[in-house]
Amino acid sequence: MMTHLDITTKPLSDSVHEEPDIVIEGGILITMVDGEGPIDPARVCVNKNRIIDIQVMDEAFSFPASAEIIDASGCIIMPGLINSHCHTPMTLFRGAADDLPLREWLDDKIFPMESEHLRPETVYWGSLLGCLEMIASGTTSFMDGYFFEDDTVQAVHRSGLRAHLAQGVIDFPAPGIPDPAENLIKGTEFIEKWAGFSDLISPGLFCHSPSTCSAKTLRGAAEISKDFSLPLQIHLSETSDEVDEIIKKTGQRPVHFLNKLGILDEGLVAAHAVHLTRDEIELLAERGVKIVHVPESNMKLSSGAARIAEMISLGMKVGLGTDGCASNNDLDLFQEMDTAAKLGKVSTGNPVSMEARTVLKMATSWGGAVLGIEQEVGTIEKGKKADIIVVDLQGPHLVPLYNPFSSLVYSATGADVRDVIVDGRILLRNRGFQTLDPDEIMKKVRALTSTFALKA
Amino acid sequence: MMTHLDITTKPLSDSVHEEPDIVIEGGILITMVDGEGPIDPARVCVNKNRIIDIQVMDEAFSFPASAEIIDASGCIIMPGLINSHCHTPMTLFRGAADDLPLREWLDDKIFPMESEHLRPETVYWGSLLGCLEMIASGTTSFMDGYFFEDDTVQAVHRSGLRAHLAQGVIDFPAPGIPDPAENLIKGTEFIEKWAGFSDLISPGLFCHSPSTCSAKTLRGAAEISKDFSLPLQIHLSETSDEVDEIIKKTGQRPVHFLNKLGILDEGLVAAHAVHLTRDEIELLAERGVKIVHVPESNMKLSSGAARIAEMISLGMKVGLGTDGCASNNDLDLFQEMDTAAKLGKVSTGNPVSMEARTVLKMATSWGGAVLGIEQEVGTIEKGKKADIIVVDLQGPHLVPLYNPFSSLVYSATGADVRDVIVDGRILLRNRGFQTLDPDEIMKKVRALTSTFALKA
Repeated sequence: MMTHLDITTKPLSDSVHEEPDIVIEGGILITMVDGEGPIDPARVCVNKNRIIDIQVMDEAFSFPASAEIIDASGCIIMPGLINSHCHTPMTLFRGAADDLPLREWLDDKIFPMESEHLRPETVYWGSLLGCLEMIASGTTSFMDGYFFEDDTVQAVHRSGLRAHLAQGVIDFPAPGIPDPAENLIKGTEFIEKWAGFSDLISPGLFCHSPSTCSAKTLRGAAEISKDFSLPLQIHLSETSDEVDEIIKKTGQRPVHFLNKLGILDEGLVAAHAVHLTRDEIELLAERGVKIVHVPESNMKLSSGAARIAEMISLGMKVGLGTDGCASNNDLDLFQEMDTAAKLGKVSTGNPVSMEARTVLKMATSWGGAVLGIEQEVGTIEKGKKADIIVVDLQGPHLVPLYNPFSSLVYSATGADVRDVIVDGRILLRNRGFQTLDPDEIMKKVRALTSTFALKA
Repeated sequence: MMTHLDITTKPLSDSVHEEPDIVIEGGILITMVDGEGPIDPARVCVNKNRIIDIQVMDEAFSFPASAEIIDASGCIIMPGLINSHCHTPMTLFRGAADDLPLREWLDDKIFPMESEHLRPETVYWGSLLGCLEMIASGTTSFMDGYFFEDDTVQAVHRSGLRAHLAQGVIDFPAPGIPDPAENLIKGTEFIEKWAGFSDLISPGLFCHSPSTCSAKTLRGAAEISKDFSLPLQIHLSETSDEVDEIIKKTGQRPVHFLNKLGILDEGLVAAHAVHLTRDEIELLAERGVKIVHVPESNMKLSSGAARIAEMISLGMKVGLGTDGCASNNDLDLFQEMDTAAKLGKVSTGNPVSMEARTVLKMATSWGGAVLGIEQEVGTIEKGKKADIIVVDLQGPHLVPLYNPFSSLVYSATGADVRDVIVDGRILLRNRGFQTLDPDEIMKKVRALTSTFALKA
């Protein structure tokens, strides 16, 4: 396979001391390391859960008989994608309420459905369905926040995906936490229960928003997160109504309000960030707050277009998220990258803005930074965790191939993902699920949701 | 399969006088006829190239032994999609030049590449690649305009797709027409050559734009089109620069300029239509001009967001197009529908705008109106041409199913299309191409484009 881009010729690595368990070879490797071009054809060797070698595939290589060889000819080998904002169990409500005014959507549809139908069993199976969809479309790590998060932990553990999973915190009666006074107590219990449970899963807290959490709750959640050295997630300035509400309540714009609370720092992960002043953006950048761009949800709910190119120009590492399936309505990060690029261009009137490489970074290395695990994932580098996907280039929509970055962002979808490896474990092989039974999960979710009495 | 929507119970049709050649049964039928809900489970019978019967599948039915039975259980049966604006052979340049300023993209990349590399052979194979991609993603009819269109006709004829194929007309030296003085002569020859060649293909003219065609050329093209009772395609007000240029040249905005030329009528198909005043929109609506919305291209080139909801509210039937693969970069109308809905919502701040059913109409029945063949295609109705697709609902991203319209627009992609029938002929069966050899076409295009010396 040929690409018209210049090829980075990487020297063969030093002698390999460990034998590979998995060898992926023959494809175009996109490492997503800054400044590195594609390696074509490449060979990536994995031992246990780590990448131990990256080679130009220009000479014979002897494998141990036990090694699993993944032939990636005609494919791209790249880091697994990272979904930095998601409410996984909302797969349960996919397509149940669309094309509605925002308040009606939330107050008359989503909140009542959550209140009526969320319970440990539905959250567990909805999470499994989300994991299935993420694996199928090349996501290897994600950041989640929702209710009954214990059950999401169990589902994600079963799937083999890597995730930061956060218990939802809100100052209203919530699914599983009828008394808001208990939200931080329950949140702390959640973290204590799951910290150290698995190398792949870290627990945390997700404050719903500055308008639905009190100052006390926000401060408390930030303190707990700091105590455990964990990120704290929040929805920030998603809609202009929400901004107006906070100005009315506090006399300040949301970012200044959070600053006054003392919680604007590198541990904070703020999703949406649509309605910000330049001053707010600069303050977020200065404090190292992590931003997650959620373009499809922001478009579908007509929230607006976040000023992502400005944030990036200030040196911020912005992640990319799908949001939940009630407002997207899928978990496909390939489509999300495409939309992020196109929304960035049309909203700024600048076609050079949000180029393919940039949105790929958002969904890989910068996503790693948002999750606080950039030293371990987000690029294909020797010593990093083996979170790798193989994207099949044999569909007519991926021919010809001039620039792999463009092909991945503007032409590929999640359906082109062929193989998925997380932490050295194969979760998808030749499009077949290795850890989950798709028929069981889809059948179960269909059965559970058939009782959801919808007035749609 | 259950859907939560009310089910339309259609009476069994009158006794069937003709025997079906093809029976598609067991799926949820979306007819796209105004006011009709889904029929589930449905049976659609095809004789030769027409739909002869539509039934609720509630009783036994005896088929002639010769009939081909397509089991659509777990699928949606719906009209084939209609791509109302496309430059098919530009698949050749897919991904060759992205993330560039508009003038640089056009003047330094696209025009030179076209000039250097377009010839009958490359156009033929590029068109075949486009047909392959359209068939794979559920498009059954399309409207095309480009150069060396004779070769696109040959390719489309081989594919079995239905299309209106137009020879490009521009007042510059163009691929295949070095002397612009000959553009209308060549265009007339093209129409005369292909009129009556095939029931599936109609020839026509495509004027590049009001800024690149002289008043004389525009008038001439309109006259020729009228003489042959054919639609005339044009790019209209895609960018604000183009609008400024026409105002400077003619003292009028583009729509008023075209009106003065006397060519604003039901035969005109105007693609893009991004930068229009309310007055221009009203004039277009009054004259019955057909508009084609091209949202992904308009976003990627940062041209802007067309005011489609306003046009629809004035009773216009707006089609949906992908544009060429140099500015999209795919021909997947499922993704285009999703983007059309989301761009419509975010650009107007109205989440109720451009609902799923509306964008499905744009890609089906209204597309039929744009192509001038709405009496024959665009809906599943007894007596209409058998242009039918089957969309597989078994991917995890399509579970659960509350509302088939939402699932198709917001969750499905072209990769979910399983079967495609055009004019009663099966072009795709269980995702296998029946008329084209994908390996041959992709190999040929890879070989041809490998010689495209790109300075990318």
